[in-house]
Formats: sequence, structure tokens, C-alpha cells
Amino acid sequence: MKNLKGSLIFGQSGGPTAVINASAYGVFSQAFMQDNIIKVYGACHGIVGILNENFVDMSEEDPSELNLLLNTPSSALGSVRYKLADVEKDESDYLKLLEVFKKYDVRYFMYNGGNDSMDTCNKISKYLASKDYACNVIGVPKTIDNDLFGTDHCPGYGSAAKYIATTCMELALDSKVYDKGQIIVIEIMGRNAGWLTAASAIASYKGLGPDLIYVPEVNFNIDKFLDDVERVWNEKGNVIAAVSEGIHDENGKLIAEYGKSVEKDSFNHVQLGGVGVFLSGLIKTHMSKVKVRPIEFSLMQRCAAHVGSQTDIDEAYEAGQRAVEIAVNGGTDVMVGFKRSNKSGKYVCEMIEVPLSTVANTEKKLPKEYILNNSFISKKFMDYVMPLIQGEVKMRYEDGVPRFAQFKGKCNH
Amino acid sequence: MKNLKGSLIFGQSGGPTAVINASAYGVFSQAFMQDNIIKVYGACHGIVGILNENFVDMSEEDPSELNLLLNTPSSALGSVRYKLADVEKDESDYLKLLEVFKKYDVRYFMYNGGNDSMDTCNKISKYLASKDYACNVIGVPKTIDNDLFGTDHCPGYGSAAKYIATTCMELALDSKVYDKGQIIVIEIMGRNAGWLTAASAIASYKGLGPDLIYVPEVNFNIDKFLDDVERVWNEKGNVIAAVSEGIHDENGKLIAEYGKSVEKDSFNHVQLGGVGVFLSGLIKTHMSKVKVRPIEFSLMQRCAAHVGSQTDIDEAYEAGQRAVEIAVNGGTDVMVGFKRSNKSGKYVCEMIEVPLSTVANTEKKLPKEYILNNSFISKKFMDYVMPLIQGEVKMRYEDGVPRFAQFKGKCNH
Repeated sequence: MKNLKGSLIFGQSGGPTAVINASAYGVFSQAFMQDNIIKVYGACHGIVGILNENFVDMSEEDPSELNLLLNTPSSALGSVRYKLADVEKDESDYLKLLEVFKKYDVRYFMYNGGNDSMDTCNKISKYLASKDYACNVIGVPKTIDNDLFGTDHCPGYGSAAKYIATTCMELALDSKVYDKGQIIVIEIMGRNAGWLTAASAIASYKGLGPDLIYVPEVNFNIDKFLDDVERVWNEKGNVIAAVSEGIHDENGKLIAEYGKSVEKDSFNHVQLGGVGVFLSGLIKTHMSKVKVRPIEFSLMQRCAAHVGSQTDIDEAYEAGQRAVEIAVNGGTDVMVGFKRSNKSGKYVCEMIEVPLSTVANTEKKLPKEYILNNSFISKKFMDYVMPLIQGEVKMRYEDGVPRFAQFKGKCNH
Repeated sequence: MKNLKGSLIFGQSGGPTAVINASAYGVFSQAFMQDNIIKVYGACHGIVGILNENFVDMSEEDPSELNLLLNTPSSALGSVRYKLADVEKDESDYLKLLEVFKKYDVRYFMYNGGNDSMDTCNKISKYLASKDYACNVIGVPKTIDNDLFGTDHCPGYGSAAKYIATTCMELALDSKVYDKGQIIVIEIMGRNAGWLTAASAIASYKGLGPDLIYVPEVNFNIDKFLDDVERVWNEKGNVIAAVSEGIHDENGKLIAEYGKSVEKDSFNHVQLGGVGVFLSGLIKTHMSKVKVRPIEFSLMQRCAAHVGSQTDIDEAYEAGQRAVEIAVNGGTDVMVGFKRSNKSGKYVCEMIEVPLSTVANTEKKLPKEYILNNSFISKKFMDYVMPLIQGEVKMRYEDGVPRFAQFKGKCNH
């Protein structure tokens, strides 16, 4: 609806990224400029913060701290993994939300997250409409997994990809220094989609990356994997293999689950460790005298803002700004999406509007044409990914370490 | 001996660092300017490259590639872990080395490494002297472990410390986003000395770091550890613990060894995983419903040149330069060391000469006064460490990823 006057609430949801706060800054800075937006609230821990009336009044924050959001990783307002029930089954959350929205005169709701969050957005938008409560609801995309439907790519992915490529290059230099080689198995995030693991191929095409890359889009075969590793070892005397955490066999069973067949050791301790540790153990058993090292990029791949992509930051910021622009112009029930185009051979990222209903709960996987021989990534993927990792961050350092944003308003963690 | 005219050989040894190549560049660039130095050779894989006459003629390399060594991690010439026998027991390596030195008229030998490498330097220096072969032998320090005797700190440590501090801060932001907390156990390198693990306290003093820090200088007690973790959990609902890989019980048994009591699972696979994985399993057993995540900084902590300390790079470079200066002025049998002083409150690092015999095989551990209550690091350590992590790297990027040095001359790996 156009010309709505009232408050804006913004929330962050799902797994954090290096740039989710850049989108927050885009939303806040754009919202501050709108005459129709009276108050700008940040919801603590997403939807749960709204239900609990746990907000930060963003206008009370120091502008220079807000500016630091551009380079502050993770979710400054706190995140949440909370799935709203279907309204037919349980209306209680919706009733509470409507009550809060009325109390604070919330007319703009922006939610920053992945698949589940767009589903939440969609449900809220429909519910409010069914109650004739005028509120423009806009989704802002975010996920390092890059698996959101309806957008060329997702904010957060470019920075994670840049971390993965850079770190693989550095590891390749490090791992090949001795006259005796070693085998490294790098475990990279991505349960259902191989976008992140594929980014390790950027390093490979630079001559300093994995020799073998396995993504969840292809059924994983343990015997073929051991053959692949042995073949590269015999050729080069060094192997780097990159695997998605979500690789699985032809029956869909996660390879990581194989490693959990013995869950406790003799001390009755739970054994932790994912697919990289498991596969390293397999190689060690298969090729007994070779040094094998599992490396997990763990949370670093999604929070290493210090090596973020400036393109990613710029786009995340713009997505936040555009969400507000769309909303004040009457748009609702859409997610901001990215459309890629080329202007005289130069990458251009255009902001588009994607209906929430088409985004929610649909996953975008790595196209088959990006996968080479089931164990590597094709050059076609490079055309896709390279524009997304361009540009180095301008991070503010203080005392030799990054200076991240600090809010006066505290979320009750 | 003064006024020696002949060739120079430089070799890299031991575990690589983010700045060992900066020292190499210091040696090469200074050696090129010396009239008395005819040829400048880089030995491939350190001492083994000398024994096998496997060299790179550095003057044939492109100067702009050599300049990139300042920001290229790992050992560009390849490294080695090779301990020379005592000459009384086996003279063969020494005889071969003398033969090679005579053949190439080597009058300057610079070796870049840690404790073992300084021992190698010392042995070679003594042997050549005993054979009346004039050659000035200089050690260039290097180790992320920071455990070399006779020097205030070691090139490589500052960059690793900066990586650890930065990454801990980013992880702290990431790990506290949800309304439900988690426990993270970060495993950091350091078998005998806690310098690297202590660097995580930089993040803690910034309010974004480990709550608990355990170093090998203190006997580790599993029960106390579990009590510590539970106490912080009850206070804050979130825990980050940092542990050195080398923590051990009161009998000197490595805690990591406890985890190896069950070495193979039912598939007869070797189980890999260090002390962080083991301790995480313990916590998980002890506090069953809490999310526990082990994170290992692995090789990244020593090769993440993209987040290196410019102070560290500058000092590593200067150490290489000074090694050549000392040698051409007749110095021999010494290692370049760092002496810290303050000039009007400002940190100054002065290059000194340390007799190799005093460095070799002596380890410098974290002083007791830097350790607080056996599970944290004192503020005194901050005064020591902060100057070492200052300054951000000026890395050259190409296509969104670092551009590292590439030699024309290839070492036969």
C-alpha cells in the first residue's frame, strides 16, 4: 500500500554472514531519510524479538557505529531459527505479532534471511492482509549457501567465496613446502547445494587450489573418491580435496553419517567430527604411510569479514536500501532479488522484485553444467562467480584488529 | 671473516610462516647490492637442496615477482625438516656440503628457521671453520611459535597472532547470534609454548574473545576444565575456550593422546582429530544438551598472509637484510635477533646479533606472569604482544584473490 505512515521493524534471521549487517545498514540509512517512517526498530533475534517486544531503537545509535555495520560480520541484532506455524494450525504467534505491530504502529516490516525467513515473511504478509492491517512486508536475501530461488546470487555468498578461494590458495602454498607431500581434505559448508565448495575452484584455476572437488549435487562414491585421491597422489605427490559437508551416497545417506557408526569411545565420550575427518581417516587407512590432514573452514567461512568481497558488501547494502524504497512506494510481499546483466562486457547487478511466494522453500542448486567429471568444477562456473568476489574491503582497524560496530541498545541475549 | 668474495646461498627450513618469504626478499635484495657477492642462490628445500645441488639462481627472477615475496606466505623455495647428524657420528653430509660450497664458491650461507635450523647453522659453521673454509654463516629467525631463545620475538609470530586475534573476534560475533548459546573449543598451534594461544586473549580484551585460555606451560586438569566451562556457561550462556595443541596432564601426557584411546572405528578406519575435538566430546558428554563445536585454526594460522601484520613483515624483511649486512662485514656464527626498546613511549625493534650456540635447541616459553589463574592470560602479555600485530598488509590482489610470487626457476619438488 502506498503512503503508509508508521514505524519500520527490521529483523535478521538464519545463519549469519559477513555482510548481513551491511543490508541492515542499507535498511536503516534509507529508512531514516523517509518522511513516512516515524521510528526505525531493530528486532532482537528476529521474529522472536518482535513477539517479545525486544527492540533496539536504531535512531538512538551513533551514526558512526551504524556505519561500521558495513564491515561487521554476523547478525548485530542477533539471529534466530524459528519457523512460524501455519496459521490454520496455530494462530497465537500471529495474533501476538499483530498486537505488537498495532502497539508500535508498524507499517513496514523487513526481514533479512534465507529460505525459511522468506517463508516467514510470506506468512506474515498474508496474515496481515487477511486482517486488513496495512503493512508492507519486504524480504531481504541473505545466505552464504547461495541457494535462494529467484535471485542470480545471494548477499553473503561472494564474501564466503572470496574467503574460501583466498584460504585455499594460502593452504596450497603451505601444504606443498616439504619434499614429502601430504593429502589435505577441506570440508566446506553446504548441506544441499555445492555453491560454496565450488568456490574453491577459483583457487584451482589460479594453480593453487584443490585437485578434487565434491559437491552434494553428485552422489558420492567412497571407492571412486579413494581412487581419485590415489591417482592424483601418484601423479603429483600432493593432494588437496574439497568436499561439501552435505555429500551423500546414492541413497541420500550423508557420508558424514558413516563416520558416526561408532558414536562413543571407550571413555564414553561422544565423538565429534564431520565428513572431512571421516574421509581423512579412510584415506589414512587406504594409503597407510601418507600424511593426511582434515581441515574444516567451520564458522570462519561465513564470518571472515576481514577478507570480504566489496562487491558483496555493496550489493548487500543496496539490497537493504532498495527494500525500503520498494516498501515506501507501496510494494509488499516481495523479496529484493539480484538480476545480472552485462553492460559493454562489464558485470552489472540490477535489483529486482521477486514474489515471496515463489522464493519460499525453494532451493537453487549448482547447475549440472558447472560440475566436471563428478569431481571438479567447470570453467563456466568461473564466469558466474568471479564478478561476485571482486573488490577488497575497507575495514577499519584499531590497535591492529578490526573495529566492529557496537550498539548502545542491548538485545537481551 | 671480512672481505670475503663469493656466492651466497639462502635456505628456508622448518614450518612455514606468513612472513618467511619477506626475510628471503630481505636477503636477496640486500645481497644483490653487495659487490662481494657474486651469485645469489636459493636452496630448494633447505639443506637438502644444498646437498642435492638443487638451487634457484635468484638474479634470474623477475624483480617484481621477488617483491611479491613480501606478501607470499609459506616457503617459496620449499622447506625441510632435516637434522644433520653430529659430525663425530657421521661426516658424510658435511663432506658433501663442503664439496658443494667449494664448487659454487659459497662464502655466505644464510639459513632461515627455528630452533633446529639454528642448530644446523651452528653445526655447519663449526664444521667449515674446522676445515679452514672461509664462509660467514648467519641464522635468520622464523617461527610462529615464538619460542626462539635470545630474541624478544620471532618473525612469523606477529602475523599468526593477528590472524588468531582477528578470527577469534569474528567467531565471537558469529557464535553468539542465537538466543540459545553454544560452547566453542578453539585449538591453536603450539606444542610446548603457549605464545600463539595467548594471542587469542587480544580478542578477549576487546570483549570478543575466549573466556578460557589454556597453554602448555600449565598442567591441564580435565575436571577443572569441565568445571571452568560449566561455570562460564552458567554465567553467560555462551563459552569460548582456546586450547594449545600441546596441553598435557601433570605427568606430561598430551591431552590429545587421551582422545586416541580408541584409534579405529568399526569400519577399521583410523580416527583423526586433536585435542579440541576430544575436549568438545568431553563437554558434550558432561553437559548433554548443549551445542558444542570444536574449531581448529589448523594451517591457516601460519599461512593467512592476507591478514598478516605489517610490523611483522617489515621486521622479517629487515632481519633478512641485516643478516647479509652482518655477513659482509665479517660476522658469522650468529643469528639476527630482535631487541625491543621504547623511544618516547613508542615501540622500537632493534636488530642484534645472538651467538648461534646460545640459540640452538633452547626453547623460550610463556613467562608465568603472563598466565592468569591457570585458565586466562594477563594484561601484562598485552603490553608485549600488541606492538607486534600493528599495521595492515598491502597485499596485491588480482581478479579478487591475492597475487602471490611465482618463480621461473622451479625447485624439483
